[in-house]
Amino acid sequence: MTAEIISVGTEILLGQIVDTNASFLARTLADCGINLYFKSVVGDNPGRLASAVRLALSRSDLVILGGGLGPTRDDLTKETVADVLGIRLVNNDEAETRLRGFFKQRGIRLPEANLKQALVFEGGEVFQNANGTAPGVAVEKDGQWIVCLPGPPGELIPMVRDSLVPLLRRLTGPDGGILVSRTVKLAGIGESLVAERLSHLMDNSDPTVAPYAKGGEVHLRITTRATDEKEALPRLDGMDRQISDLLGEHIFGRDDETLESAVLDLCRRSGFSLAGAESCTGGEISRRLTSIPGSSDVFLGCAVTYANNAKTSLLGVRAETLAANGAVSEETAREMALGAKQLFSANTAYATTGIAGPGGGTEEKQVGLVYMAVAGPWGVSVSKARFRGGRETIRAHASQNTLYSLWTALRSLNQER
Amino acid sequence: MTAEIISVGTEILLGQIVDTNASFLARTLADCGINLYFKSVVGDNPGRLASAVRLALSRSDLVILGGGLGPTRDDLTKETVADVLGIRLVNNDEAETRLRGFFKQRGIRLPEANLKQALVFEGGEVFQNANGTAPGVAVEKDGQWIVCLPGPPGELIPMVRDSLVPLLRRLTGPDGGILVSRTVKLAGIGESLVAERLSHLMDNSDPTVAPYAKGGEVHLRITTRATDEKEALPRLDGMDRQISDLLGEHIFGRDDETLESAVLDLCRRSGFSLAGAESCTGGEISRRLTSIPGSSDVFLGCAVTYANNAKTSLLGVRAETLAANGAVSEETAREMALGAKQLFSANTAYATTGIAGPGGGTEEKQVGLVYMAVAGPWGVSVSKARFRGGRETIRAHASQNTLYSLWTALRSLNQER
Repeated sequence: MTAEIISVGTEILLGQIVDTNASFLARTLADCGINLYFKSVVGDNPGRLASAVRLALSRSDLVILGGGLGPTRDDLTKETVADVLGIRLVNNDEAETRLRGFFKQRGIRLPEANLKQALVFEGGEVFQNANGTAPGVAVEKDGQWIVCLPGPPGELIPMVRDSLVPLLRRLTGPDGGILVSRTVKLAGIGESLVAERLSHLMDNSDPTVAPYAKGGEVHLRITTRATDEKEALPRLDGMDRQISDLLGEHIFGRDDETLESAVLDLCRRSGFSLAGAESCTGGEISRRLTSIPGSSDVFLGCAVTYANNAKTSLLGVRAETLAANGAVSEETAREMALGAKQLFSANTAYATTGIAGPGGGTEEKQVGLVYMAVAGPWGVSVSKARFRGGRETIRAHASQNTLYSLWTALRSLNQER
Repeated sequence: MTAEIISVGTEILLGQIVDTNASFLARTLADCGINLYFKSVVGDNPGRLASAVRLALSRSDLVILGGGLGPTRDDLTKETVADVLGIRLVNNDEAETRLRGFFKQRGIRLPEANLKQALVFEGGEVFQNANGTAPGVAVEKDGQWIVCLPGPPGELIPMVRDSLVPLLRRLTGPDGGILVSRTVKLAGIGESLVAERLSHLMDNSDPTVAPYAKGGEVHLRITTRATDEKEALPRLDGMDRQISDLLGEHIFGRDDETLESAVLDLCRRSGFSLAGAESCTGGEISRRLTSIPGSSDVFLGCAVTYANNAKTSLLGVRAETLAANGAVSEETAREMALGAKQLFSANTAYATTGIAGPGGGTEEKQVGLVYMAVAGPWGVSVSKARFRGGRETIRAHASQNTLYSLWTALRSLNQER
């Protein structure tokens, strides 16, 4: 079974909102073992929408439309689809009752225009909407299915889970199988080198392996089609093992694990606490670490010391160090990390100092120059890099590399034990 | 001139990454006065990509493809487009030199596979890539233009600004007119209330006004079509004035201004320095403030005090305060803000303490409860809120509201003078 997604709405087409619905639908289809080959966006224009629907029906078994079920004159998805399919729209009593109840509960008069939201495809299925006023509608015509869902993610997502997925499971039947995936995550290595080292696995047909680069990491997605998770697991494990044998030293996690959660896990395993000192990254590393639920049992805090005075008064960086080497230097990074370790009474600490730009660079110390220090039972190690790109790119690279240095140091310690 | 965007990549199609490039390109096309009618996504499959390109050429004057210029065998955008158009790919010396330099600088051997990134359309234009290894390529064929851009947003966005926009301006010529926009940004008010208060402006046909909600802010986009910026300016100003008359107290900035840059500007105007203390937000506010170039002349630093000990030792929050009221309390927030002000010798300071969840909530203090304090010449004011949503949503709301409180306090002070 092949599917296609059409997102409807001028505000999506013009980039005023990012289309998160389509990503969610794509993952849902994969979980149901349905192949997705095309996704498209059209504005609130009946003519162009009709041509997109006709094209989709010419090449896909299942067409899912999101958006355009609202009450305004611009919302014409159901009307357009009914027209293309040559079927009628009829009133759905339950949808109308819910619609009236929705407005009554809020003490608002029901605008006449909203009544069209209770119209559904004749002979089709209706997905009642627990979170809004527009029901979803679906219909089969000549063996093909068309589904129309409301645009707001807060309505679409629960409706997909509660109504669309059961329909899809019914359509694919017990024999269709599901796609099961695992993502193996690597850092400290580039995508092209990963692809080169694993080139013999990239052509594998089951499971398939696909690399993609994401924020200084390489993610390898292993996918297999199986009747259930139990059948899929040994295949995923086998491929995972082959990847680990070749590139194990770069693998910091799988699936929902992140570099920051991996760092926290290694600290936890060693009984270590962690603190930080950030200059050029401005709190980004601290933000990433504390984005992990439960980070408070390991992470004590961080001193964002933007001003030189703060580096001295909070972290104990010596005035002579700053005078002799400048704030962006190996020595300052070292003293910042040691200072943070002491300030928070932590077992391990990290520090960053650099020039994020666009101003502040000199010939000797150019924009993008960053020193990153990690302190712990191993002492202090400082790495230096010159990152390219704009301010946010440089800060993101510096954050990612600091977390990677921390992870490497903690893992070596763990392996020695 | 009509355009169409095709995003290439299985990871976009399958929803593993959200397609922010397409939104950016859509806004860029609007700014150039080019109509966009379709956007689509295809996976890394040459057959389906070829059919998408053929379809696009059958209905649009300009086709922009993003992604698939990488070094791996999956990356086939240029090859596929060349095939559809019946043109040749040739080596570009400057691109090859840059490619070799990129790897040499990093001390990495150039993988053979990367060399194909230096291939460009024969007789076409080349957009050199300052932030990565794949140049962008563009070519005209029978009056239609096809443009291929690299997928990583850190490469695509600067390339669009530096190379694609000048090309588009050349293509549309001086008579096509341009769309000129201004975004007026509001905080502390909801989208529906804005729409209600401005309902008489929403139907205006020139300039148009469109509201959209974004991360706790409401952005109003004013747009007009004109021959040049000079002609557009009075129209934008007129509408801006009407909006300001009605909702001026909520307007913190326009276009590229952000709430954090507005806070820094107000501090700068008053000659104030700023410091912070963050618990539940974990450094997010500090990260936002320091994302603004030049923030270092105002922002001194921030103490991320996750552990209670750190709140006491760094910020001087009294042990009795913590014992009597808990870390998540009005009193603790107040002492944190005053402590940060003193610790960094700053004129103004902010503080956050709350329960970001998912764990840690009690019946009395539920997940989402956050206290936000701002200290300055006005004394200390603390606000309390209960935010809904997941951990990151709660942290984002708390950060946004703290910055809004700070902005409100600084502006009142500024107006009094």
